Amino acid sequence: MTPPVLTVVGLGLIGGSLAASVRTGGRWRVRAVDRRVSSLEYALGRGFIDEASADLSAGVQGAELVVLAAPVRAIRELLGELGGLVVPGQVVTDVGSTKASIVAAARAALPPGVPFVGGHPIAGTERSGVQAVVPGLFEGRTCVLTPEPDTPAAAVATVTELWHAVGAQVLSLEAEEHDRVLALVSHLPHAVAFSLAAAVAPGLGAKGAALAGPSLASGTRVAESPAAVWRDICLENREPLLQAIDAFGERLAELRAAVAAGDEAALMDFLCRAAEARGTLWRP
Amino acid sequence: MTPPVLTVVGLGLIGGSLAASVRTGGRWRVRAVDRRVSSLEYALGRGFIDEASADLSAGVQGAELVVLAAPVRAIRELLGELGGLVVPGQVVTDVGSTKASIVAAARAALPPGVPFVGGHPIAGTERSGVQAVVPGLFEGRTCVLTPEPDTPAAAVATVTELWHAVGAQVLSLEAEEHDRVLALVSHLPHAVAFSLAAAVAPGLGAKGAALAGPSLASGTRVAESPAAVWRDICLENREPLLQAIDAFGERLAELRAAVAAGDEAALMDFLCRAAEARGTLWRP
Repeated sequence: MTPPVLTVVGLGLIGGSLAASVRTGGRWRVRAVDRRVSSLEYALGRGFIDEASADLSAGVQGAELVVLAAPVRAIRELLGELGGLVVPGQVVTDVGSTKASIVAAARAALPPGVPFVGGHPIAGTERSGVQAVVPGLFEGRTCVLTPEPDTPAAAVATVTELWHAVGAQVLSLEAEEHDRVLALVSHLPHAVAFSLAAAVAPGLGAKGAALAGPSLASGTRVAESPAAVWRDICLENREPLLQAIDAFGERLAELRAAVAAGDEAALMDFLCRAAEARGTLWRP
Repeated sequence: MTPPVLTVVGLGLIGGSLAASVRTGGRWRVRAVDRRVSSLEYALGRGFIDEASADLSAGVQGAELVVLAAPVRAIRELLGELGGLVVPGQVVTDVGSTKASIVAAARAALPPGVPFVGGHPIAGTERSGVQAVVPGLFEGRTCVLTPEPDTPAAAVATVTELWHAVGAQVLSLEAEEHDRVLALVSHLPHAVAFSLAAAVAPGLGAKGAALAGPSLASGTRVAESPAAVWRDICLENREPLLQAIDAFGERLAELRAAVAAGDEAALMDFLCRAAEARGTLWRP
């Protein structure tokens, strides 16, 4: 008996790693869709996928599950194209870093009887593209799913099975809560790293650059993340990100005021709270 | 022939690691001074030092070179005590993270004929105290020295010899330039990490904390650094730190404005500049 088809649309780091990880399980026959024929050939050559298509229509035909694996705004555009191509019985999911706008786009674009289950695996590296694929990337990681109250349980179960198959655990959140939390734990740290790199590097001479040390390295580690991906995330998750930036700005202003005033007690209190806050993040 | 004595005042991570690293070379007999008898006993037991003293006066007597290894404000206080204890022929240096205020304090406190050479090894870990000592901590690292125009060359040569003996290279900077550069490459990244931890952690529920990922981990890595040490650094290097915070605040405000306006071009430009800036820091 031929296993059902899983179609991954977009063979970047996440889509390619998902395809390569799920293929080893044998639960699905893995098909990939990408405009870049070179990426399809690379993935076929490496054994990441079973079949390939440069055409979205042919690529999703007959698939049990379609995974949209692209930057967030491209996912919204793909959903528009997909509306006329999928039929009841198929399930659509995605791996986008923001969820509310994608869930809304899916609701508007997909025909009745084709459920959408928003997904976001919390995994990645600074690298991108099919050459960066890591089979096993999702092992031990968490994938957030954002089903809505009327999403059929069977569709949620199928998508849950996908993530379990690649070794991830699944956490359900409302799309808006996902976006608020991700703004704090991921989008804000990126915004801070971008700003830190932009602020520091131009002010250093050659001697100064030689002194760039580990705290600056950690603080700016993600500042070379793909610009187009992060432009999309910032714009798709605008309001939660702005709120997170403002919450951060308030804390930085509090620290600045304590330093400017030479207020030892306030400064000590701030630094102790910061250390305690950091401690709660990974040692709850 | 007995080698000359090197006295390390303060057996924390830096002082203890320096003592342990230099002792293996045999160029100096290593003596340590610390109020904490338990730290002295620990260091003697581990073979980090040759001799120990809980008394500053006895500890510096006859030493060729005295290294003050304490938080920056404690170094200024030690310089005051040291003024009546050292005699011409001895050289004093330090390992403090800020330099201008310490150089000024040394000039005011030490008697004529006792040169002071400010020093700052760019090394450390998140840990502190004599239990965190790492022999070899300075191998391949840079130590900044901040001699003044009238500092005798022989004193600079002795301190340079110390850092070469533990495998570090030496870089000379004016004290004010050191403080400006360190505010950018170290003190600002710490201020940002403290603020990020303080801003993010309180806004997360239990589910949210489970999503804390690698970008937040990197961005807050140093937020649990010792509060008293960083209180001192912030206050000792107040003006350069405030200027660095403001430079960072301008970049963050620029990013925020592009997000708020939904300005794709400005956002893309910002993210590309940030990535380029990060690239220049470690691949010049």
